[in-house]
Amino acid sequence: MKIKGNEYSTIWFEKNIVKIIDQTKLPHQFIIKELKNVEDVINAIKNMEVRGAPLIGATAAYGLVLSILEKNDLSFLKRSSEKLICSRPTAINLKWAVDRMMAKLLGVNSEKIFEIAVNEAKEICNEDIKFCKNIGLNGLEIIKKIYKKKNKTVNILTHCNAGWLATINWGTATSPIYHAHQNGIPIHVWVDETRPRNQGANLTSYELNEEGIENTIIADNTGGILMNRGEVDICIVGTDRTLANGDVCNKVGTYLKALAAKDNNIPFYVALPSSTIDWTTKSSKEIIIEERASEELSKIEGLDEYGKIVKVQIYPKRSKAMNIAFDITPAKYITGLITEKGICEPSENSLKKTFKK
Amino acid sequence: MKIKGNEYSTIWFEKNIVKIIDQTKLPHQFIIKELKNVEDVINAIKNMEVRGAPLIGATAAYGLVLSILEKNDLSFLKRSSEKLICSRPTAINLKWAVDRMMAKLLGVNSEKIFEIAVNEAKEICNEDIKFCKNIGLNGLEIIKKIYKKKNKTVNILTHCNAGWLATINWGTATSPIYHAHQNGIPIHVWVDETRPRNQGANLTSYELNEEGIENTIIADNTGGILMNRGEVDICIVGTDRTLANGDVCNKVGTYLKALAAKDNNIPFYVALPSSTIDWTTKSSKEIIIEERASEELSKIEGLDEYGKIVKVQIYPKRSKAMNIAFDITPAKYITGLITEKGICEPSENSLKKTFKK
Repeated sequence: MKIKGNEYSTIWFEKNIVKIIDQTKLPHQFIIKELKNVEDVINAIKNMEVRGAPLIGATAAYGLVLSILEKNDLSFLKRSSEKLICSRPTAINLKWAVDRMMAKLLGVNSEKIFEIAVNEAKEICNEDIKFCKNIGLNGLEIIKKIYKKKNKTVNILTHCNAGWLATINWGTATSPIYHAHQNGIPIHVWVDETRPRNQGANLTSYELNEEGIENTIIADNTGGILMNRGEVDICIVGTDRTLANGDVCNKVGTYLKALAAKDNNIPFYVALPSSTIDWTTKSSKEIIIEERASEELSKIEGLDEYGKIVKVQIYPKRSKAMNIAFDITPAKYITGLITEKGICEPSENSLKKTFKK
Repeated sequence: MKIKGNEYSTIWFEKNIVKIIDQTKLPHQFIIKELKNVEDVINAIKNMEVRGAPLIGATAAYGLVLSILEKNDLSFLKRSSEKLICSRPTAINLKWAVDRMMAKLLGVNSEKIFEIAVNEAKEICNEDIKFCKNIGLNGLEIIKKIYKKKNKTVNILTHCNAGWLATINWGTATSPIYHAHQNGIPIHVWVDETRPRNQGANLTSYELNEEGIENTIIADNTGGILMNRGEVDICIVGTDRTLANGDVCNKVGTYLKALAAKDNNIPFYVALPSSTIDWTTKSSKEIIIEERASEELSKIEGLDEYGKIVKVQIYPKRSKAMNIAFDITPAKYITGLITEKGICEPSENSLKKTFKK
């Protein structure tokens, strides 16, 4: 998608270097960062320079490519894969992408291993783009129906950033939005600020602006009253991990919006590529939910009056803060899952049927 | 209650000047501000140097005192009262306090009017302190029961600041907390940050710190997952306006927490003095909900690395933002109303019985 009128992906491989858009610098600075070894990749994931379940997976895949470049040695590769999997705990794609790479690479002739790794990482990216595009086409049908009935601007609420910046391109939750826009359907997006890291404001609003899509940032507290007033037609969010039973683990606060949508009879959809489905974990209680540094809450970065980036302490100095990154939205509050293979119910039956498991 | 070990009220009258704690400067600076005329009072309310339904009412009452000092003239007083009522639209106490003052003052001999006005404003303050104290004693019984059953620290979640800083003293939602603490019940408070103005972090956490009560600031998004995990025993919030049918208009985001509490079988209480009850408005749809400047979202103030207060722009410059200040929590999601006369159901019957209307 576009930034300042130019087409970008979130990650690409060029002259044996992985290049990413440093997402911690957005929206105030657009910086392309070079990752040259597996440690760079691990730090980029940990520090959220790349984030979003699909993009984390793709970046980890390239991490293994860089690991091979650094030292073409099986035990080093294995150690790299383990460290990559541990770099963030909640998103399932990370493990999925590393496992997929390792399945291709184990037992491969060491002369060919680099080429095979590069191809597989590229394939993971291409597949993600294709999946996200299909999610968009499938979600487009839902938006079309709403527009047909309403015949006025369709108001979509989203939480966090499940945009193209969270994937390779198109995004998950935003893909139906981009497709609707390209199909001439008038769209307006309510963007949850998404504290504490403000990915909604910093990334979703930013990328929608760059694509010329009308959007308004709101405090995370605001979705309920907007739904009460009939100012939300549909919610579409992403997911970091979708259980086979249809429960969704996504950015903290998703659950509250799902409750409000249910209470106001507003459809609540989750958009996801099948790589975010966790077929093995039985209950959402088993998911390790990441707790991040409390400084992500108590300090915030912005532009001062001279346009300089400044980090400020916003809480009382003596106050403690706690930063839980995700929550669980039970399947019963989800209208449907928008996947690359179509829209399915948030249930084991429907998911298994769709993905022929 | 205490700040830096000294006892304070939020407002007092001294040598014909109204003194307030400038709450826009907390938590980084503790500044006592002097209000010398009715315009000062209106600005203090509009700019939220004083805020919280009960305190707004008391400040408006003193506004009329200053109006009389400025110009002992009936039409000037009437104009002052109208301007005061319009200074913020949602809190019902504002109108209640102004109406109460005017009922005392209209038709009074102009020589005695000043003294009567001062006494009535003081009486409004004293009554609020008494009511808040009784709210605390009534709410204490609920916390006692939870503690008796649990025999471990009681975890209370609150939203925004319905603390002593929102009243004259004790607070509404915090009064049961302070009383529990004074009665030796171990308490821990989850403080919703409360975007966009962060009254939870800036004021509630601040005042709890000053009273030595354990508390942790969380993003507004976090309450749901904490309730899921059983880490919240009870929610207590305040209200800006309580309809006779039991619906509550409070700081935006309250509704989302009430939904989560319901979904997790956690008691959700609203603490209020009867001055916040709106006996005449029939439906919450009739309430004018304040929309404030979008800059309250897009800009934020904090301390930079040198300890200097700096305001920073946190959103993309091109992004729009919308700032709705309140939402409606329907009576069906409220376990009970903690009032100065006891705990009642959120229903017209129960409220009328309690207040003999």
